[in-house]
Amino acid sequence: MEDLNEIIEQIGSLLNERNYYSIKELLKESEPADLSIILEEFPQKLATLFRLLPKDLAAEVFVEMETDSQESLLTLLTDSEMKEVMNELYIDDTVDIIEEMPANVVKRMLNNSDVETRKIINDILKYPTDSAGSLMTTEYVSLDEDITVEDALKRIRRTGVDKETIYTCYVTKPDRTLLGYITAKKLLLSDENMVISDIMETNVIFVNTHEDKEVVAKEMSKYDLLAIPVVDNENRLVGIITVDDAIDVIEEEATEDIEKMAAIIPSDKPYLATSPFEIWKNRIPWLILLMLTSTFTSQIITSFESKLASCVILTAFIPMIMGSGGNAGGQTSVTIIRGLATEEISLKDVFRILFKELRVSVLCGAVLGIATFLKMLLIDNLLLRNSEVTVNIAAVVSFTLIITIIVAKLVGCLLPLFAKRLGLDPAVMASPFITTIVDALSLLIYLGIAGALIPGLN
Amino acid sequence: MEDLNEIIEQIGSLLNERNYYSIKELLKESEPADLSIILEEFPQKLATLFRLLPKDLAAEVFVEMETDSQESLLTLLTDSEMKEVMNELYIDDTVDIIEEMPANVVKRMLNNSDVETRKIINDILKYPTDSAGSLMTTEYVSLDEDITVEDALKRIRRTGVDKETIYTCYVTKPDRTLLGYITAKKLLLSDENMVISDIMETNVIFVNTHEDKEVVAKEMSKYDLLAIPVVDNENRLVGIITVDDAIDVIEEEATEDIEKMAAIIPSDKPYLATSPFEIWKNRIPWLILLMLTSTFTSQIITSFESKLASCVILTAFIPMIMGSGGNAGGQTSVTIIRGLATEEISLKDVFRILFKELRVSVLCGAVLGIATFLKMLLIDNLLLRNSEVTVNIAAVVSFTLIITIIVAKLVGCLLPLFAKRLGLDPAVMASPFITTIVDALSLLIYLGIAGALIPGLN
Repeated sequence: MEDLNEIIEQIGSLLNERNYYSIKELLKESEPADLSIILEEFPQKLATLFRLLPKDLAAEVFVEMETDSQESLLTLLTDSEMKEVMNELYIDDTVDIIEEMPANVVKRMLNNSDVETRKIINDILKYPTDSAGSLMTTEYVSLDEDITVEDALKRIRRTGVDKETIYTCYVTKPDRTLLGYITAKKLLLSDENMVISDIMETNVIFVNTHEDKEVVAKEMSKYDLLAIPVVDNENRLVGIITVDDAIDVIEEEATEDIEKMAAIIPSDKPYLATSPFEIWKNRIPWLILLMLTSTFTSQIITSFESKLASCVILTAFIPMIMGSGGNAGGQTSVTIIRGLATEEISLKDVFRILFKELRVSVLCGAVLGIATFLKMLLIDNLLLRNSEVTVNIAAVVSFTLIITIIVAKLVGCLLPLFAKRLGLDPAVMASPFITTIVDALSLLIYLGIAGALIPGLN
Repeated sequence: MEDLNEIIEQIGSLLNERNYYSIKELLKESEPADLSIILEEFPQKLATLFRLLPKDLAAEVFVEMETDSQESLLTLLTDSEMKEVMNELYIDDTVDIIEEMPANVVKRMLNNSDVETRKIINDILKYPTDSAGSLMTTEYVSLDEDITVEDALKRIRRTGVDKETIYTCYVTKPDRTLLGYITAKKLLLSDENMVISDIMETNVIFVNTHEDKEVVAKEMSKYDLLAIPVVDNENRLVGIITVDDAIDVIEEEATEDIEKMAAIIPSDKPYLATSPFEIWKNRIPWLILLMLTSTFTSQIITSFESKLASCVILTAFIPMIMGSGGNAGGQTSVTIIRGLATEEISLKDVFRILFKELRVSVLCGAVLGIATFLKMLLIDNLLLRNSEVTVNIAAVVSFTLIITIIVAKLVGCLLPLFAKRLGLDPAVMASPFITTIVDALSLLIYLGIAGALIPGLN
């Protein structure tokens, strides 16, 4: 980060001096991911700086840039410059960029790619977003099964430069049916005269073009794959997905789950690039829904109003009971939701989970109940001299808290599992949702226990 | 998943028939990650099944198993069997396993590895947990700078079989100082007579042994690396970290952040393998802390008690206001926390973020306020015939809600940024923490506005 700011400063002053030669030398030294950040610091000079990059590096930098910068750069480049960049891009990156560009830019991009590439791009664009097909690249190494290792290495040497990876090569029939794979490591370590079909792995992990990209990333992580082949419905190899894209998917999916857990409708767009109106659209639906469902709590309080009026001190502990219940339930639901997402737990564990959470909730409830009882008598009554906080009231609040914690944790573990069972996304069953349910339940428990234990109340 | 259950069933019946030959054939067909699950279904027959695996596969399966199964298997294996497994393991996996085993098993493992391996293991064990040093493996390909491509390929062919990756080779001085790297792709595509120093990349991204593993994983993700070199304080290459380990770190870190956001102290242990007592220990501290801080809300309510007693209907909307405030604040804090974690936003964006959240909060507050106003008059008053819910009360509640949402969102974005600024972990500033603060603030706002707008109250 330090270095980056230094480079940006240097380039700033070199730009003022119009010392383009030094800028060129300076840029050559950096990584594409850093160069994109550097270039974006100079929106006015974007095209100038971009033109100073070596051709192969330019395309890599372009891929790393924000959508806005890509768009403004594309409008500044000449057709022949655009053609050069497009030639260096991998197909999957081209498709990603095209998906974000306005129609006129897309048209120019397609016009500046050769006929074959244009056809492939159009094919990939047809796959649903979030599918393996939309994520894949068609630039893989395929080998015939009857050639020797020597021939295979020759083929890699001849065609490898344009392939996104040469480290896993796919063995296919002439009609592209996937037969197996062989790693570059195996090729390098095998005798040159061996025949591919004798040494290839036939136990291939592959995905269908329509598979969800989250599932694809999980498979790659589970089996430690550097690339996974993507096949169509006839088992013909149509592309591969490489591990760097899988990592992006894993990070995006985690962000998405976190957003859902926080009652936000997930969006792919970076926060800083999203307008307040769009952010509002992603946040307001859950806020309204949760506000409406809290009508229940209002109703419960209203129906106990006369009792509460005769013992208002009880209302002072409603926020604490609801808050603790919400926190306890949220802890459990988030644990279960994440466990389901990482496949650490599954539906068949439901009874083990329930029994475990029951024991945890009794432990938590007991400790929290005792702590509250002592706190109310020592702090509220003795220290803060609130004479209304009697032993009786403290007992009602503590006892309520114990039951609430147990109920909250059981609700918190059952709801996500239930959602999963119904084929819904467990992530929406997180804290805000659980809280609303636990709020109503804890109030009923509170007022029920108060009615039973406080003589004048009923 | 379907297939797996089928295989498990088949193996169950083959075990009854003592048909070990067929089991052997069946096991050979599966992937290590699946085999570990299959074997663990038969805890009584773990060693029997493990002995049926081909040697090279056995080690890979062993790595994938749960700690408990690894331990019980190690106690069942003879010294020579253990030696065989240890020989096949990569150093980083060996260290991971050793870190989880009890002392007597560790002793046997070290006794069954050769002198050199034992020294390397002991060195790696000295690095702090969560450091790059503890995650790395020492099995990389290193090349001298003055050799030719042909010699380099020969060296890879000779030594590559035991290396965790041969796809990135590191060029070092005789004293192991890191000079550059060259990929297997470049080696394969270059002329055999080229000298390594002429074609290697000298702009190497590397990490120090003491770097946090989260930072390492981020670097690898950012620069799309398949492996990253780890150097000591004298810039000498001591190991590499491969992308499959980086993926595990990325997933673990996301889980850890999610747990922190849900007021849980994170733990590395899988949920199902954690005892209720341990789970309780990770959850109770925040529950107690948040319960204690809610003393403020109780105090606020108590100090307004006489006013509330004269207008108890006001208490009916406390849960809704607090809940909405907590949800709105939680949405913002979680967005900011995740943005900071993925480095999508940084501290220098503080004013852009604040201004954005201010506009979002005004939009959310306005809509929610109007919705509440209408809901209270249409549902609470007209539909549910609650005559206490007057226009005046509805105005107080709606106005409070608007201010609360704005305050909640500003607190929700400032606190994580503030934590980051102080060098603390922003993740603990998530919903439960924000909620407690917003609860107290919203109550003060509510009772302040009620005092001003309801004539009889003050």
